[in-house]
Amino acid sequence: MQIEPGKLLAQINSPADMKSLDAVQLVKLSDELRQYIVDVVSVYGGHFGASLGVVELTVALHHVFNTPEDQLVWDVGHQAYGHKILTGRRDQFHTNRFYNGLSGFPKRKESEYDAFGVGHSSTSISAALGMAEASRHKNEKQKQHIAVIGDGAMTGGMAFEAMNHAGVSKSNLLIILNDNCMSIDPNVGALRDYLTDITTSKTYNKMRDEVWNILGKISKFGPNAQEIGSKVESSVKSFLLKQSNLFESLNLRYFGPIDGHDVNHLVSVLNDLKDIPGPKILHCLTKKGKGYSLAEKDQTKWHAPGTFDKFTGEIHKKVYETPQPPKYQEVFGHTIVELAEKNHKIMGITPAMPSGSSLNIMMKVMPDRAYDVGIAEQHAVTFSAGLATQGLVPFCNIYSTFMQRAYDQVIHDVAIQNLNVVFCLDRAGFAGADGPTHHGNYDISFFRCIPNMVVSAPMNEAELRNLMYTAQLPDQGPFSIRYPRGNGVMPDWKTPFEEIKIGTGRKLKEGDALAFLTLGHVGNYATEAGEKLQKEGLDVAHYDMRFAKPLDESMLHDVFHNYKYVITVEDGCLQGGFGSAILEFMADHGYQSKVVRLGIPDEVVEHGTQMELHKECGFDPDGLYQAAKKLLVLQTI
Amino acid sequence: MQIEPGKLLAQINSPADMKSLDAVQLVKLSDELRQYIVDVVSVYGGHFGASLGVVELTVALHHVFNTPEDQLVWDVGHQAYGHKILTGRRDQFHTNRFYNGLSGFPKRKESEYDAFGVGHSSTSISAALGMAEASRHKNEKQKQHIAVIGDGAMTGGMAFEAMNHAGVSKSNLLIILNDNCMSIDPNVGALRDYLTDITTSKTYNKMRDEVWNILGKISKFGPNAQEIGSKVESSVKSFLLKQSNLFESLNLRYFGPIDGHDVNHLVSVLNDLKDIPGPKILHCLTKKGKGYSLAEKDQTKWHAPGTFDKFTGEIHKKVYETPQPPKYQEVFGHTIVELAEKNHKIMGITPAMPSGSSLNIMMKVMPDRAYDVGIAEQHAVTFSAGLATQGLVPFCNIYSTFMQRAYDQVIHDVAIQNLNVVFCLDRAGFAGADGPTHHGNYDISFFRCIPNMVVSAPMNEAELRNLMYTAQLPDQGPFSIRYPRGNGVMPDWKTPFEEIKIGTGRKLKEGDALAFLTLGHVGNYATEAGEKLQKEGLDVAHYDMRFAKPLDESMLHDVFHNYKYVITVEDGCLQGGFGSAILEFMADHGYQSKVVRLGIPDEVVEHGTQMELHKECGFDPDGLYQAAKKLLVLQTI
Ligand SMILES: [Mg+2]
Ligand SMILES: [Mg+2]
Repeated sequence: MQIEPGKLLAQINSPADMKSLDAVQLVKLSDELRQYIVDVVSVYGGHFGASLGVVELTVALHHVFNTPEDQLVWDVGHQAYGHKILTGRRDQFHTNRFYNGLSGFPKRKESEYDAFGVGHSSTSISAALGMAEASRHKNEKQKQHIAVIGDGAMTGGMAFEAMNHAGVSKSNLLIILNDNCMSIDPNVGALRDYLTDITTSKTYNKMRDEVWNILGKISKFGPNAQEIGSKVESSVKSFLLKQSNLFESLNLRYFGPIDGHDVNHLVSVLNDLKDIPGPKILHCLTKKGKGYSLAEKDQTKWHAPGTFDKFTGEIHKKVYETPQPPKYQEVFGHTIVELAEKNHKIMGITPAMPSGSSLNIMMKVMPDRAYDVGIAEQHAVTFSAGLATQGLVPFCNIYSTFMQRAYDQVIHDVAIQNLNVVFCLDRAGFAGADGPTHHGNYDISFFRCIPNMVVSAPMNEAELRNLMYTAQLPDQGPFSIRYPRGNGVMPDWKTPFEEIKIGTGRKLKEGDALAFLTLGHVGNYATEAGEKLQKEGLDVAHYDMRFAKPLDESMLHDVFHNYKYVITVEDGCLQGGFGSAILEFMADHGYQSKVVRLGIPDEVVEHGTQMELHKECGFDPDGLYQAAKKLLVLQTI
Repeated sequence: MQIEPGKLLAQINSPADMKSLDAVQLVKLSDELRQYIVDVVSVYGGHFGASLGVVELTVALHHVFNTPEDQLVWDVGHQAYGHKILTGRRDQFHTNRFYNGLSGFPKRKESEYDAFGVGHSSTSISAALGMAEASRHKNEKQKQHIAVIGDGAMTGGMAFEAMNHAGVSKSNLLIILNDNCMSIDPNVGALRDYLTDITTSKTYNKMRDEVWNILGKISKFGPNAQEIGSKVESSVKSFLLKQSNLFESLNLRYFGPIDGHDVNHLVSVLNDLKDIPGPKILHCLTKKGKGYSLAEKDQTKWHAPGTFDKFTGEIHKKVYETPQPPKYQEVFGHTIVELAEKNHKIMGITPAMPSGSSLNIMMKVMPDRAYDVGIAEQHAVTFSAGLATQGLVPFCNIYSTFMQRAYDQVIHDVAIQNLNVVFCLDRAGFAGADGPTHHGNYDISFFRCIPNMVVSAPMNEAELRNLMYTAQLPDQGPFSIRYPRGNGVMPDWKTPFEEIKIGTGRKLKEGDALAFLTLGHVGNYATEAGEKLQKEGLDVAHYDMRFAKPLDESMLHDVFHNYKYVITVEDGCLQGGFGSAILEFMADHGYQSKVVRLGIPDEVVEHGTQMELHKECGFDPDGLYQAAKKLLVLQTI
């Protein structure tokens, strides 16, 4: 389906075409850009609200700045759809987030306008400051460096680290704080309150009341008192707005807040700021979902709604005749509540992903026991460690890819102290359309090398529930459970809890010469491949190992006594992963079977559906089937 | 050598013994505690300046609070010597940092007074907030939770993440900001300037000037103007101190700054604060090295000076008759300058470790090209990525253990974008006396699974220089070089540069049935073991592989064609490390040699000298010798 851009937008093939637009045209372009985003996303899906919120900002930035010479860094980047459309990618934009199509995030390989690849939050100030310092080093004085960062991303610690450095640098850096009071879910924390406070001038109002209060008391000083007060007040006001500002505290010149939906005002402010050297911050107020009223009203729902009818706002949902398996995240969300009802030590923690992790279910029914700590993975983990020191059992739910942010905290604060923190790693393995920045490919390797850490992965919903049940039993130490994005395999998933002894696998099928050893959801692929092989008269064994650490050594002794050929399967990187754990076991015990390891190769795999990527890497059901056939042929030679 | 505590200190066997001390006694105890630290550290070594700086604070805290019931968390923890001495560990304190002795940091296993194990910076607020929320959950209303954090640690992003959460919590949390303007080196960044600013009341002074300026202009209003102004001023003052405060911005009640060396004032303030509910921060001004004048004057040198004559201040240095090998860090420090003189694209980055990494050498001669970004590993890496996007070649020097803090940034900002950032991982492998929080055990595993990343380790100084030379050649992509704490092996280390082709090892010795494959400095142990075996007529081959990734596949084909027995050796964890890389190669190519992997086992190994720990784990020279003998015996069976 070909989607037509508006007349003016149709003529914009690069930002060069925007330079001469007048005030009226800039408004028109903004409207057409917004419409085009609605038109495309409603049909093809993708992130929605964030890009609508920065339409005017995007137009103003490319009108004022000399991109791509000037370096424009979008934090997180799911708000950069307008940027992509204006920078030569309008006609491919319908391929956004599809296999072999455009990336859903800025990406250096894709365009010279994408100054820095993003996906994770809070990186933009560091990156732009690096660029700005490089320009200082190269004496490129005219070059501008802009980081556009949301209020949610600003709570991530590295943004603060970067501002601490920026404040003492002399480089030409403009930070644009895109303040919409939202992350994916409503933004949380003291910074949010503070931004609201300066936005609504509460600080100034409090000051004024204070002054007038004093002046009231001193009215005995005569009629001049009020006039003096008024003078003092206006002086105090301008002073206060500077000095009482958190960003000014960090030596960043602060401007704003201004209306982020007034494109012409933005243009004039940005033009002014271009001439002010040094590090500075412009506070823009925007509305997530701006211009699409349903999205303005329910911003979390419309963060990435899937496809929808743009006129009625009806979000398209597949209708099934039979009950479907739930998402793994939903199983987590309901199960933690069930467990927490019985075990009063259980607490829930998410860094800014209440809806993404489904911890919002617990937050609703047990608000005092479930925390959204903001985009703050490091804090989330050490906060959990603190809870655990007092005998509680925190379930800290972090996407596999974001767990990379808290790696040190897992080692230093949890594992070395052997504390009972349960890590639920959602979106483990390929994340799908979000692509390489979001793939959870590395966690088996980076967790397996940590002492005391249990590394587990359920093959289905019942197993996830049982692993969660097991993890909250007394004194289990650091315990990780990884599960994929998307749906499980059991429509009837609400099974009774059963303890799983740590480090035990399941034998699912006997076989002749060859065995599949699987970890996690890919076990279902082995089942499928095994059935197909069975039809050809080939008996292939299947063990769902459940744990990459500790390994089920007794089961593995059986396996290597009985099978000459072994195929390990994991939705994770092959370097140091589950398959390597098996090789280590073999080496340590002198086994010599032929082992083929299937999983994610040592390269940056791009975006696509999860199944497309599993296929690309050869561990979809057919990949397993083929690998088995190839080995079994070897046997007959 | 028995060191006698002062008379009062000798009676303090736990904080219970301090409760009834009067004001005079508290001063006396502080003096004796300081003296005891000087006496012990001068003889036995350890961290010095930090603990001297918090003597009065330590005494006041244990006098006022009900430890260990109240939870006292020391950030970083190298300042907790006084805490250890007062909490029942006085008579073991001379074993501090020795093998099987006390840990140099608070450690939960060691004492119930050590509420949270530390070592890395900036964790204390998160941990204490977790404890405080646990107390809320358990309805333990009297319980106090205190985090003592330095101004340097405050720049670490996770401290900000924690404050963002603390500011909206209702929990009973006291943050004590121990502000001495120092990390190990002088503290840097905008926050430092800000703290100085509020300490010296510059903000308030500016405000006052502003008000008087206005009042001057309005003196025509008559004699009352000054009086009105004065009233307004005092009102403005108290308001401003609250509102213009960065911490108050985050909704933490701010108190101070107060003199951190006035023990009785501290006692009275802490007693007052006990009764104020909610999150709050007390700003204490202290001097690192307080009370030992040389340490006050050169705080970096006296951070951890080794042993010294406490009267003359002469630091004991071993005197050698022949030239000794340099520290690896010094080789790095000098070599980067040599390379940067020729290659103008090279920049240097350290997060708060200029003296620890020896980047201070470059900072001195090329101040515009070498950055200390503060305790901010995440920012350091992404800032480096930003520099690299502009064609520069940043050398980002981070201790292996602290690289854990920036793991996501390495993957997300450097590796996925394949940027030319060189990571120099100092203190890789066992860190020695600093113990498990500082051991750099995991980097081979956690870097090896990252696409595009080169993982290398030099066996000696010349190799380090050549790897650094190689890394700065054009388009090398992400390149990591790990090297150990301490000295190398080449007194004559300033060798000419030679490119090392990426992914090539060195054959150092031919042999018969068995080969050592080593990575990094442990290659020297293999040389030693090989010589000993040679004397017994046993010819053992030795390959210095140099790269854990990419592997020298051609060399490995040779090895596995020729050697039935292989011993891999690494100063790193065995799970997923260098040895596992070799196993993966074997599995992928169908080799069946018997492989023994030597390295760090999957457990928390405590502190000791590096050689003590290498021996404990069986990869000291004798361990290699024994492992080889054992395998060679197998052969003869
Ligand atoms: Mg936002
Ligand atoms: Mg300090």
